[in-house]
Amino acid sequence: MNLDLDVLRQAKTPLEFIGNAKPIIDSALSTAIARLPTYAAAEQISNIARYATFAGGGGKRIRPALTLLTARCCGTPFEDVIESAAAVELIHTYTLIIDDIQDGDELRRGEPATHSKFGVNLSLLAASVLLIEGASLLQEKLRIPPFLLREILHKLHAGQEADIESTTWPTSNRTEGSLQFIFSGKTGALFGLSCASGLGTQDSDEEMVRGLFDIGSEIGIVFQAVDDLLEATGDSGQTGKPVGKDRAQKLTFMSLFADQASAREAIQRRRVALEANIRERLPGEGAGFLIEFLEALVHRSR
Amino acid sequence: MNLDLDVLRQAKTPLEFIGNAKPIIDSALSTAIARLPTYAAAEQISNIARYATFAGGGGKRIRPALTLLTARCCGTPFEDVIESAAAVELIHTYTLIIDDIQDGDELRRGEPATHSKFGVNLSLLAASVLLIEGASLLQEKLRIPPFLLREILHKLHAGQEADIESTTWPTSNRTEGSLQFIFSGKTGALFGLSCASGLGTQDSDEEMVRGLFDIGSEIGIVFQAVDDLLEATGDSGQTGKPVGKDRAQKLTFMSLFADQASAREAIQRRRVALEANIRERLPGEGAGFLIEFLEALVHRSR
Repeated sequence: MNLDLDVLRQAKTPLEFIGNAKPIIDSALSTAIARLPTYAAAEQISNIARYATFAGGGGKRIRPALTLLTARCCGTPFEDVIESAAAVELIHTYTLIIDDIQDGDELRRGEPATHSKFGVNLSLLAASVLLIEGASLLQEKLRIPPFLLREILHKLHAGQEADIESTTWPTSNRTEGSLQFIFSGKTGALFGLSCASGLGTQDSDEEMVRGLFDIGSEIGIVFQAVDDLLEATGDSGQTGKPVGKDRAQKLTFMSLFADQASAREAIQRRRVALEANIRERLPGEGAGFLIEFLEALVHRSR
Repeated sequence: MNLDLDVLRQAKTPLEFIGNAKPIIDSALSTAIARLPTYAAAEQISNIARYATFAGGGGKRIRPALTLLTARCCGTPFEDVIESAAAVELIHTYTLIIDDIQDGDELRRGEPATHSKFGVNLSLLAASVLLIEGASLLQEKLRIPPFLLREILHKLHAGQEADIESTTWPTSNRTEGSLQFIFSGKTGALFGLSCASGLGTQDSDEEMVRGLFDIGSEIGIVFQAVDDLLEATGDSGQTGKPVGKDRAQKLTFMSLFADQASAREAIQRRRVALEANIRERLPGEGAGFLIEFLEALVHRSR
């Protein structure tokens, strides 16, 4: 890794941090994909994995940025967590490929979705390889115990199931509790893993790992709620998705509220509670940067 | 586990052993699936995983039987490897779900394929959960190093890619070498894992793990070659698949030979070489039962 990690130490705001982190993360992702085994008779899987990871610029890399940001808060050397940060993004990319197949979406980040470009059959293989590689990398590099990784991955899939099935749920099931379940699975699980990964390989007790997982998970839930709000109110150019598409049938954050103002209030309440949780878990100066990050997430416009 | 493992010790032939092993393996598989986390808002994944594992009677359970059989050859207590045996079958079941989606097959073991019964979207989630659970169980229970498991899983997917792409390969690519690559991935990888899993948790060096992996992998290749031969000559009632379906486009073992006699000869040559390999790796009485198993595989009629 020749990239200068000082830019992470020097960043003054979380947004500057995320911007500075992006090329570093992209470089780590390139390295991770280049490490996939290559075979003369089967070279498409790596190519598809690379495409899925980088098409449309690859997005903001918010999950790996959260790992690096947590590392800064915890005093973990960035070098220790950069591969884990990339590993979580590989698993996230796996979920994007499967999502687009499940939803029949032909576009992702403004470019052809992976299955639209390479077909469903090979895309399924590349997706699994990203999942396998991400999980392997995490187990190699991290102190997160294997049983916790297993739990997180199962939760991710359970959230995805509920998200899919929510289109057929009766009104009685369309509650804040069920939405919490969906968000904590489909978004919270990987945000939680990202945050917990920021601890690195330093000797950390399981309670600390779980505490950071919970904080990251809740950050993910707030992130997803803001996403739903932006999608309901924004334009397709800002979020990259057709406006109101998800809203039609799936249970979304917005569908729980009468209007945008009450939805925004609910997000603010969660943010306040989460800030208290962060301060308790990371006493002293550590909490500050993570709280600013949360505020930036809540106030983002895309 | 209340089942009597003595029936495994008492079996006099590999076929009797496989028959006796089946209810023991099925019980271990039930236990493994029952251990999947359950969620009120997402209960289909476990149900689908169970269906995929047991529909149509669940097949012969040849991979987990190979683990138990190797355990007998190596003197490993069956109790030590029964969960690993089940874990490999979970991963195998993952591949069956994906295979049927990729091939558009509506039937598996005479019953609706998983995606035909539950739809593609939820079946994809259940498939991933089986892969995750199988890999987690193996890492929890075995001495197979994580990097080797990673290597095996990547190989499995590479073989699957080549298998899919072989339909469009020019004649110059349709060689014994490419077929070897396909078989060693799509069949050899999990057979190798099964065989290596028979070592259990006893302190075994990596060379021994790799040696058993190679033997299992080669057993898988021979198994797949016989499968191709049976499919080209048998009837659909015996193999459970439409006759000649695979042969039409994919590169198969039979397509390399002018007639069945030369295909059978090639299988015999591989069997002889493999027997020598087994005797070298497992000196003394250990080799005998594995060699009988191989012979039963070669001479099977379904």
